[in-house]
Amino acid sequence: MNLSDTHAAVRRPVPQELLDVLASHFGTRCSQADAVLEHHGRDESPYPVTPPDVVIFAESTEDVVLVAKLCSQYKVPLIPYGAGSSLEGHFLAIQGGVTLNLQGLNRIVSVNAEDLTATVQAGVTRKQLNEEIRDTGLFFPIDPGADASLGGMAATRASGTNAVRYGTMRENVVNLTVVTADGRVLRTTGRARKSSAGYDLTRIFVGSEGTLGIITEVTVRLYPQPEAVSAAICTFDTLDSAVKCVIDTIQMGVPVARVEFMDANAVRTVNQYSKLSLRESPMLLFEFHGSPEGVKEQAEVVQDLAREHGGHDFEWAERPEDRSRLWTARHNAYFAGVQSRPGCRSSTTDVCVPISRLADSVGAAARLLEQAPFPYTIVGHVGDGNYHVLMLLDPEDTAEWKLSEEINHAIVRQAIEVGGTCTGEHGIGMHKMQFMQDEFDPAALELMRSLKLAFDPDNLLNPGKIV
Amino acid sequence: MNLSDTHAAVRRPVPQELLDVLASHFGTRCSQADAVLEHHGRDESPYPVTPPDVVIFAESTEDVVLVAKLCSQYKVPLIPYGAGSSLEGHFLAIQGGVTLNLQGLNRIVSVNAEDLTATVQAGVTRKQLNEEIRDTGLFFPIDPGADASLGGMAATRASGTNAVRYGTMRENVVNLTVVTADGRVLRTTGRARKSSAGYDLTRIFVGSEGTLGIITEVTVRLYPQPEAVSAAICTFDTLDSAVKCVIDTIQMGVPVARVEFMDANAVRTVNQYSKLSLRESPMLLFEFHGSPEGVKEQAEVVQDLAREHGGHDFEWAERPEDRSRLWTARHNAYFAGVQSRPGCRSSTTDVCVPISRLADSVGAAARLLEQAPFPYTIVGHVGDGNYHVLMLLDPEDTAEWKLSEEINHAIVRQAIEVGGTCTGEHGIGMHKMQFMQDEFDPAALELMRSLKLAFDPDNLLNPGKIV
Repeated sequence: MNLSDTHAAVRRPVPQELLDVLASHFGTRCSQADAVLEHHGRDESPYPVTPPDVVIFAESTEDVVLVAKLCSQYKVPLIPYGAGSSLEGHFLAIQGGVTLNLQGLNRIVSVNAEDLTATVQAGVTRKQLNEEIRDTGLFFPIDPGADASLGGMAATRASGTNAVRYGTMRENVVNLTVVTADGRVLRTTGRARKSSAGYDLTRIFVGSEGTLGIITEVTVRLYPQPEAVSAAICTFDTLDSAVKCVIDTIQMGVPVARVEFMDANAVRTVNQYSKLSLRESPMLLFEFHGSPEGVKEQAEVVQDLAREHGGHDFEWAERPEDRSRLWTARHNAYFAGVQSRPGCRSSTTDVCVPISRLADSVGAAARLLEQAPFPYTIVGHVGDGNYHVLMLLDPEDTAEWKLSEEINHAIVRQAIEVGGTCTGEHGIGMHKMQFMQDEFDPAALELMRSLKLAFDPDNLLNPGKIV
Repeated sequence: MNLSDTHAAVRRPVPQELLDVLASHFGTRCSQADAVLEHHGRDESPYPVTPPDVVIFAESTEDVVLVAKLCSQYKVPLIPYGAGSSLEGHFLAIQGGVTLNLQGLNRIVSVNAEDLTATVQAGVTRKQLNEEIRDTGLFFPIDPGADASLGGMAATRASGTNAVRYGTMRENVVNLTVVTADGRVLRTTGRARKSSAGYDLTRIFVGSEGTLGIITEVTVRLYPQPEAVSAAICTFDTLDSAVKCVIDTIQMGVPVARVEFMDANAVRTVNQYSKLSLRESPMLLFEFHGSPEGVKEQAEVVQDLAREHGGHDFEWAERPEDRSRLWTARHNAYFAGVQSRPGCRSSTTDVCVPISRLADSVGAAARLLEQAPFPYTIVGHVGDGNYHVLMLLDPEDTAEWKLSEEINHAIVRQAIEVGGTCTGEHGIGMHKMQFMQDEFDPAALELMRSLKLAFDPDNLLNPGKIV
């Protein structure tokens, strides 16, 4: 990757007339202040800041409709912005234009506890939702680590630690309210658990990264809070034996709620960051949900499997505060990594492979990284076959960046060769566009482009992303 | 519905030159025999026979590519045909053209037991797949009753009795091989359990009913055969109390594998057809999958709930042969209904509503039907909020047809009003196109039409269906 690629894209002109109309309608909710523009031109990716021309702080679907109509009229790019936690340059304004900050769409529209669904505005974050529904006895399981917005999570087809049991946003979005490129509003479907009526518009918008329409409301599935929860950690002498333990667990159909992997490097940075004293060798973190008997049964099966693979120190965390400390540590693995090398920026891989190839894939990645001059950690939602290599890079050292991109590409190539994907949950954004041709047949890419053109003929919605 | 609507569509001319090329290439696998054309112009819907001009019996993806290229060149409609078990006129050749029988694509391509997936050609039926993988300890759960082809099940987004636990084809198709309208081949994605790479082509083709591309291979998820299975039936005094028992079961998060409803009429026809002596009142059939302890635990919870709702005769069927008799009876409910009125044809509703509205919806349907001069039965995959009214009609009696269509429309209208859908699993075909405008916003229908146009600009693939 050339880190200045972003500046090669042609910024489209934004007419003063449009800026005037926006300013007059939105008042203080329309900003061209440098700090605001810069804030909206920066995500967790290594790209340089790439600001839009103006930011609108929307508070309703009607606001979004108005802005979309204006952008359509003036042929100006329109970029939705949720919590700003994406990793691949998803919302960088490489062609300039209007960024639509959706954090003001922060209302829980309705909770249908009886139907196990909730409808929220796109800016509501997953933690906010879970706090607001706590008393219903239900919860929303998808947990990508960051406190992302539900609109953003839908748009990137996010998942995270619980996906092995509860699925990803693909399975857990019931319906969406979407504003089209020309400013019309639609609901993608109803609230029934299943439907065979027409094309699956919901799934078309889930994962479309703001390039096909702007999501303004999301209805998601909720689940009964499990009667019993227990967590355990187990360390292994080798990465291979840890991964093989996971493979056996999945193949036996044990309904684990979470199974996370950390390599020895990751455990070390987490120990430093979270003041823990976990044994610094490859580790699995498990969580089990169910009835008290069910949880016990699952845990026994997994403990036996871990023992077969040479696991030791199978430690239990049954008290909520112990579990919470453990999972906070895991969630902080990203920040722990970044902080372990002061001043660094990170580049993160996100391949996902068929579970039978996981040990090969992680092993190959580790061998590639052994030679690297920069520190790295490996963590993963390994129950899904998904893992991340966090490469901690000196932002000034182009040789490090070049090597990290080569390693990234080699890891992706290996994953695709065994039937996997370049991204399990982070999405394509800009950074992974280079891998689309490796992963998809030319005819598939052609269909994706024709879909984009059909839904957004003037290429206004988050242009220059995905395809 | 006017039953002769199908004949109002304009049949497009099929040039003799195309027929000659097909005949010379496919030999005996190309047929214009009357019996063959008629067979391919008739499904389980009440529409009159609407044959294509020619039928090709494909045996490979390459065959499909060749036919698609020719149809594209000559601008002739192309209609895929699986097991012929669809219910809504899905494959009737209302504009004439070429029907592509895919039953010869009947090979299991690969079984990846370690990854819990299997790849099959589109003509493989679900029973064939389950027979061939029996020794692996895995099974494919989706069970729409008919022994449908997996390509057809993907194309109609089918589900059935197990969907409450295992999901529908939407959740269980991993990837697809598809031939486009102009005869290119693509795989929609890889074999990883999840991916955030680009637009979800898999979900675009699942449920597209042959209108966007021809599915030639399907990779599906498999599941470990449950260690323990038990089934139970329970009767209730009223339809309402049976349905409310289901609602409570789902809301408590009990992971039932199946929960099926039959009204007293359905039980009566099943008793006659299958020589059983079930008590002829509203009935629920349950199946539980899991470990022996887990199954026991689930069953106890459900038995308590049934008792609270006045259920009686909670009868167990733990031996495989007893379970099999029970489920065969349920699966034969459609044929049992049809045979109970000699010479009749059936019209079937397929609404699916949020579970909280299920009792209202079924109750309203039953009240509408009380007045009807024709017999009917109600059965349902009620754990999903999905149920069917089977109306048994005299094919010669236009008044009966007219009334059945009015009742159908009223049931659909009520379902859509409460957030439901006109079709939970059968698909749109021709019969339900009339409901699309009730169910979707104009902008949603517009996007569906633009998607169809983008993927099939000449409207050659199964024209006149869905949109």
